[in-house]
Amino acid sequence: MERTLIGDVPSLIGQIVKLQGWVNIRRDHGKLIFIDLRDRSGIIQMVIIPDKEEAHKIAKDIRNEFVIEIEGLVKARPGGAIKEGVATGGVEIEVEKLVVISKPEAELPIDIAAQDLNLNLDTLLDNRTIALRNDKIKSIFRIYAELLRSYAETMNKDSFVEIKTPKILNAATEGGANFFKIKYFEQDAYLAQSPQFYKQAMTGVFERVFEVGSVFRAEPHYTTRHVNEYIGLDAEMAFIESFEDVMNQLEKTMAFVMSKIAENCQSDLEKYNAQILPVEKIPRMKLTEALEILDKEYGKKMETVDIDAEGERMICEWVKKNNNCDFVFLTHYPTSIRPFYSMPSADPQYTETFDLLFMGVEIASGGQRINDYNQLIASMKKHKLNPDDFKHYLDIFKYGIPPHGGWGLGSERIVQKILGLGTIKEAILFPRDVKRLTP
Amino acid sequence: MERTLIGDVPSLIGQIVKLQGWVNIRRDHGKLIFIDLRDRSGIIQMVIIPDKEEAHKIAKDIRNEFVIEIEGLVKARPGGAIKEGVATGGVEIEVEKLVVISKPEAELPIDIAAQDLNLNLDTLLDNRTIALRNDKIKSIFRIYAELLRSYAETMNKDSFVEIKTPKILNAATEGGANFFKIKYFEQDAYLAQSPQFYKQAMTGVFERVFEVGSVFRAEPHYTTRHVNEYIGLDAEMAFIESFEDVMNQLEKTMAFVMSKIAENCQSDLEKYNAQILPVEKIPRMKLTEALEILDKEYGKKMETVDIDAEGERMICEWVKKNNNCDFVFLTHYPTSIRPFYSMPSADPQYTETFDLLFMGVEIASGGQRINDYNQLIASMKKHKLNPDDFKHYLDIFKYGIPPHGGWGLGSERIVQKILGLGTIKEAILFPRDVKRLTP
Repeated sequence: MERTLIGDVPSLIGQIVKLQGWVNIRRDHGKLIFIDLRDRSGIIQMVIIPDKEEAHKIAKDIRNEFVIEIEGLVKARPGGAIKEGVATGGVEIEVEKLVVISKPEAELPIDIAAQDLNLNLDTLLDNRTIALRNDKIKSIFRIYAELLRSYAETMNKDSFVEIKTPKILNAATEGGANFFKIKYFEQDAYLAQSPQFYKQAMTGVFERVFEVGSVFRAEPHYTTRHVNEYIGLDAEMAFIESFEDVMNQLEKTMAFVMSKIAENCQSDLEKYNAQILPVEKIPRMKLTEALEILDKEYGKKMETVDIDAEGERMICEWVKKNNNCDFVFLTHYPTSIRPFYSMPSADPQYTETFDLLFMGVEIASGGQRINDYNQLIASMKKHKLNPDDFKHYLDIFKYGIPPHGGWGLGSERIVQKILGLGTIKEAILFPRDVKRLTP
Repeated sequence: MERTLIGDVPSLIGQIVKLQGWVNIRRDHGKLIFIDLRDRSGIIQMVIIPDKEEAHKIAKDIRNEFVIEIEGLVKARPGGAIKEGVATGGVEIEVEKLVVISKPEAELPIDIAAQDLNLNLDTLLDNRTIALRNDKIKSIFRIYAELLRSYAETMNKDSFVEIKTPKILNAATEGGANFFKIKYFEQDAYLAQSPQFYKQAMTGVFERVFEVGSVFRAEPHYTTRHVNEYIGLDAEMAFIESFEDVMNQLEKTMAFVMSKIAENCQSDLEKYNAQILPVEKIPRMKLTEALEILDKEYGKKMETVDIDAEGERMICEWVKKNNNCDFVFLTHYPTSIRPFYSMPSADPQYTETFDLLFMGVEIASGGQRINDYNQLIASMKKHKLNPDDFKHYLDIFKYGIPPHGGWGLGSERIVQKILGLGTIKEAILFPRDVKRLTP
C-alpha cells in the first residue's frame, strides 16, 4: 500500500489510507485514544477504538514525537465536530493498524505541539533541532525557502546569470577588518565577507549576475539584527545609466519576491498575523533629507551625516505613515562612510549609493561602483588604502569594465521583519553568533 | 534612445538602434573599419564608413575590449555575405555614432576573441577575470547556471524544502580529518565539509530538504577532479523504504537536470561538441560486481573491496558500451570505507549506500542513514569514534527520526564531464586548490 500524505486525505472519505508521520499530540480517553498525526503536508486527528485491540494496545504506550505508520478509514466528521479553519478539520481517521517506526529515546525537553513555544532565545536555540518541528516555527522556513526560490526566479527572468564565487580569499579585502582567519595549508587565508569583487569582475563577463551565498562577518555584535554568518542575496549589473537603475531593479525584485511570498505562503503568514503590502514605488530620499525629518519630527539629531538603528526605525515609521510603504531607499551616503569603490556624486562629498530599509531595518546596501582604473586608485588612496594590496581587484578594471552597480541583500532580515520576529536568529535554522556555534 | 540587445537586432532591419558592449575584434581595412561588438546576448558585425567622420576617427584608435556605445542602422547582408550558423549572421550595423564608454588601461594579456584559448591551466587561471570573457568559456558557466536553476526547480517540484545550514562548526564532525580550522572569536572552529548532520536533522522537520551550498575540504589533492572549495547539491528525504528510493529520486533529478541543460543550453553544448544522452533507467550494480567486471574485462584487480579513479573510468566505459548510459550507480560499499552513519545491509559487512558515477568520475555519494539512536552509538564505537564528541548530532536522534537517506552531489564535476573539460578547475569561476587562492 502506498503512503498517502495527510494533506490529500480530505478528498478520500470512505477509503483506507496508509499514513506516516509524527505523533503531534496524544489524548487518552481510556476507551478512545486520539492522536494528532503530523507529516510534511499537515496534521490530522485519528481515533483508535478499543475494538482494534492490537492498535489500541500500542497506542497506550505511544507518546509525542513517536514516528508511526497507520492504516485506517477516512471518515467525515459529524457536523458539530467539524473544525473550521483547519485543512483536515472535516475528516478523521479510524485507525485499524498501527506500527511504531521510531521511538524517541528521551522525554521531550519542550512541548513542540503548543501553538506558541514561548521560550527564551537560548532555550529555543539550545533545543533547535526539536523546536524546529513546531508548526509555527516551520512556517518561518517555508517562507524563507520561498524567498530563495522567488529571488532566483526573478533574477533569472531578468537575464541575471547565477554565479558561485569563492568564500576563501587570500587577502582581507575591502580594508581588512572583520574577517575570520583560516589556516589554509601553508598559507593564511580569510573568509569572504561579501562576493563584491568577484561579482564586479563578472559584470565584464555576463553584464548581469547574481549570487546566493554564505557571508561571514567577524563582528562582535550583540544585537537583534546581526549574526556572524548569513546568506547574502547579491546582484550586480552593467551598462547602468545611474544608480537609479540599480534601485529600479531592486525595487522590481522586492516587489516580485514579496508578491510570491504573499501568494504562496498565506497560511504561514497568517500564523504570525503578518501582512504583506503590495510593493509599487518605493520612496527614495537623500540621507540628509531623512536626517532633517528625524530632527524635525522626532527631535533626533545625529552628530555626523549618518544614521543609526534608532534613526532607521524612525524613518521607516515616518514613511509608513506618510507613504503607506514598508520600504524606503536612503540615498547619497557620504563618501567617508562608504567603501572606496563607491561612485562619487556630482558633489564628491557624497556617493551614488543607497541603503534599502524595510520595516525599520536596513536589508540591502548598494549603489554604483567606480569602473575606471585610475579613479579607483585615487579613491583607494583617499580612503588610506594601499593599491598594492588590491592587485587582483585592480586587474579587473584594466580591460574595459562598463558602468555598473549592484546590491547586497540580507536574506534573513527580510523574513525576520515580515514575521515580526524579535531577532534575526529566529529566522536562521542554526544561527552563529559570537558565543554560539551549536548545534 | 533605449539600448537594444544584440540578440534582438536581426528582427530590426531598417531601424536605427543603440548598442552597448565590448569590442570583440576590430579589423581596419583603411577605409572601412569592421568591429565585432559583443554584449551578453551575442556578437554582431558593425561597419564604420569614412563618411561618418567622427565615428571613423574614434574607431581608428579603438582596440579589443574597449567598452563602446554606438548608434547605427540595421542592414540585411547581401546573400553572399550571410554568415550561416551565426544568430546575427544575416545582418550588420552601419555605425553612425560611436562613443567610448571605458578604455582598457593595458594591453590584453591573452587573445580572448580566439575560438579556443589554448592556454595552459596556470595562465588560464592567472588571467581568469579576462579569460572568462571568451565566448566558449562563458558557455561553461551558462550551463553551470542552468544546472543550479534546474536542480532547485526539480527539488522544489518534488516538495523538498530549500534550507541553508551553517558553514562554521564548533567541531570537526564526521571523524575529524580534512577540516580547515578557523579562529572564531575566543573559540576554535572549523569549516563545514558537508551539511550532513544538519540536513539529517531537518528530515525530522520537513521530511524532504535540499541545500545548495559551499563545501570546504582541506585535502591536499593534486588531481583533475578535486578542489578545496566547491558547491554541493545536497538532498535528504525521510520515510524511505530502502536506499533504492534515494537512488530513484536522484535518478529522476539527474534526468530532469540533464534534459533542461540539453534543452536550454544547446548552443553552449555545441561549442564543445557535447552530447547529452537522455537519462532513463540508470544501471545499478553492487561494488563487488563492478570489481568482478574490472577483473574479467580489464584485468584490473583491487586489493580490497574498493574502487579507485581508474576503476571508475573503466566501469563507466563498460556501462556505456553495454547499456549506452553515461551514468551508473555502484552500491553496497563495505562498512569499513563508509561513514559511521551509513545503514548496514542485511550482511553487515556492507552498507545501504551508493556512489553515482558519470562519464568516468564519481559525482555523488549517498545512501540510507542509521536513524536509531542506539544503533548509531554502536556504529560510532565500531568506527573508533567517541560518542561524546557527537553530542549535538546524537541529540537529533533522541526524538523520533524516521528512516531516511540522501545524497551529496558535486555540481562542478557534472559540468566538467558534460563538456569534457580537462580539470574541474575549468568548471569553477575562481577555483581554490592547495596552492591557488587567487584571483
